[in-house]
Amino acid sequence: MATLKDIAERVGVSITTVSRVLNGKGSISQETKDRVFQVMKELDYHPNEMARSLVSKNSHLIGLIVPYIDHAFFSTLTAAVEAACYKAGYKLFLCTSGGHRDREREQFAALRSNNVAGVLVCSRDLGAVSNLADIPQVSIERTVDGMPSVACDNYQGGVLAAQELLANGCKAPLLFGNRIVSMYLPAYLRYQGFFETCRKAGVACGEYYIDAEDLFAKDLGNDLRRAKERFPETDGVFATSDVLAARIQSASRNMSLGWGDDLPMVGFDGVDISEYCRISTVAQPIREMGELAVKILIDWLNGEEVPQSSILPVSFIRRDSSDPKRRG
Amino acid sequence: MATLKDIAERVGVSITTVSRVLNGKGSISQETKDRVFQVMKELDYHPNEMARSLVSKNSHLIGLIVPYIDHAFFSTLTAAVEAACYKAGYKLFLCTSGGHRDREREQFAALRSNNVAGVLVCSRDLGAVSNLADIPQVSIERTVDGMPSVACDNYQGGVLAAQELLANGCKAPLLFGNRIVSMYLPAYLRYQGFFETCRKAGVACGEYYIDAEDLFAKDLGNDLRRAKERFPETDGVFATSDVLAARIQSASRNMSLGWGDDLPMVGFDGVDISEYCRISTVAQPIREMGELAVKILIDWLNGEEVPQSSILPVSFIRRDSSDPKRRG
Repeated sequence: MATLKDIAERVGVSITTVSRVLNGKGSISQETKDRVFQVMKELDYHPNEMARSLVSKNSHLIGLIVPYIDHAFFSTLTAAVEAACYKAGYKLFLCTSGGHRDREREQFAALRSNNVAGVLVCSRDLGAVSNLADIPQVSIERTVDGMPSVACDNYQGGVLAAQELLANGCKAPLLFGNRIVSMYLPAYLRYQGFFETCRKAGVACGEYYIDAEDLFAKDLGNDLRRAKERFPETDGVFATSDVLAARIQSASRNMSLGWGDDLPMVGFDGVDISEYCRISTVAQPIREMGELAVKILIDWLNGEEVPQSSILPVSFIRRDSSDPKRRG
Repeated sequence: MATLKDIAERVGVSITTVSRVLNGKGSISQETKDRVFQVMKELDYHPNEMARSLVSKNSHLIGLIVPYIDHAFFSTLTAAVEAACYKAGYKLFLCTSGGHRDREREQFAALRSNNVAGVLVCSRDLGAVSNLADIPQVSIERTVDGMPSVACDNYQGGVLAAQELLANGCKAPLLFGNRIVSMYLPAYLRYQGFFETCRKAGVACGEYYIDAEDLFAKDLGNDLRRAKERFPETDGVFATSDVLAARIQSASRNMSLGWGDDLPMVGFDGVDISEYCRISTVAQPIREMGELAVKILIDWLNGEEVPQSSILPVSFIRRDSSDPKRRG
């Protein structure tokens, strides 16, 4: 069976260079890479990562747990995390839980048994995190005692959303979002910033909550009807994610509810959908958050000191949905 | 160190039951699952999948290669694939290549060295597939000799898109899409179906291509200007993906190009974005395609005979973008 040495000799480079090509580390010329892969094929060489990682104890595998990969926030985040892992010579082991606690717990077990070096946590069931307590973990948009976390400035995001609706002259804004049942989720600060800004302006706002786990608002039609019944005077909407905002806009047009096209609306996240649907939004720096979380985790794995809490700034993007000149 | 037997005894079930809970196989009551996990924690039991899979030769790991996880077609597909793998007791090892051939080749090497049982292939560089020739592989929306594939009926999709524009009275429809450089991609049939249907109706259509790898149309503004210069008479657009359609709609509104709101437009894929943006589309049965690909791969792993080519039907969804009564 061929060894790294055989490959290095035939290519005419050092073993270290071959190893760096295999691990995707360091800058190696395209020509050398091509030649290494070519010779690997000729000699039928297949490095066995699993056997190797059992010996070296570093699998160079990073786990990521997200509830839904087909939700724009998490797919954008995953793309950023994967790219950052790749640059650092790590591979990503992705787990999605579909929001099921039970499944998430099994995913944690799978991460452990596949010897991940560290885990990035965007799970719903943070109680289960303790199952992995001995493995370095960094959370994203979740806050757990003793675990380094990366989040956006949710409170300021809520403030910006409220300010935009108030600037549109809203007297009865409505917050429409997922119920937050866990103080682990800093998104509750998003709600707080919104409510406090409205209160300070002397404006009373409505609150309509859908199920905490239902990020896609599966029963949106009925929820919108109920929200309209309960808060008929609503003259502006803060949807706490862009996916919700886009779905509200689309559904209310179809239902002729009179929301969406007619009322100012602000979303949250800053994913592509908000651009396509011309929805004003509070943008999280999603890619930067993913990159920072990977950096913190790898620094930790390398024995460096890491910050406990990193809060990245949000920004407001004004589009048609809250621009009085362009709406309607 | 605790064993499966210790857990089984303490829970009061068979070793097989404990094993099934760990592998996520079979239907086990929630109560039993909870109890097994509880006892695992008490006894500090951690099954080592890696060591186990080196012995059993079945890692119960399925690899999936997609170019971009943050593209709606691939994130929807990935969610379906992951859920189907989970149901069958397999875990998903996701690789994204960012459309880079070089990186894709490294991903293939990573899949091999992590001992995946099989691979689902949505890669751009199908030349590299031969590197994994000894591992069962099923392709999705790609056709490679000798590899089972799952695709939608692309030709019929192109026909439906053309018929819709013709029914809108278009005399100069434009196909706007990624250049297809590889006959591996059955999406070229999508184009063919469109052109042939227009030709049969005696209508000449324009063709504007962006880079084959650039699924997000990064330079869309300039491309739209160039397309408009080259085909000023355009009175209808077939955008060959929903992401492209949504981006064209949004950009042309911002640029006041006079496309999007004014011209009938049809997209392709049937992802959520098309619904949010009220874009008519040819819907691929993406979830069914993902589930079928997983089924074929697992059947193959179990030694069963599998079909070489599976073509699933598409359907047309009419929305505002091609409905003369609602556009504008």
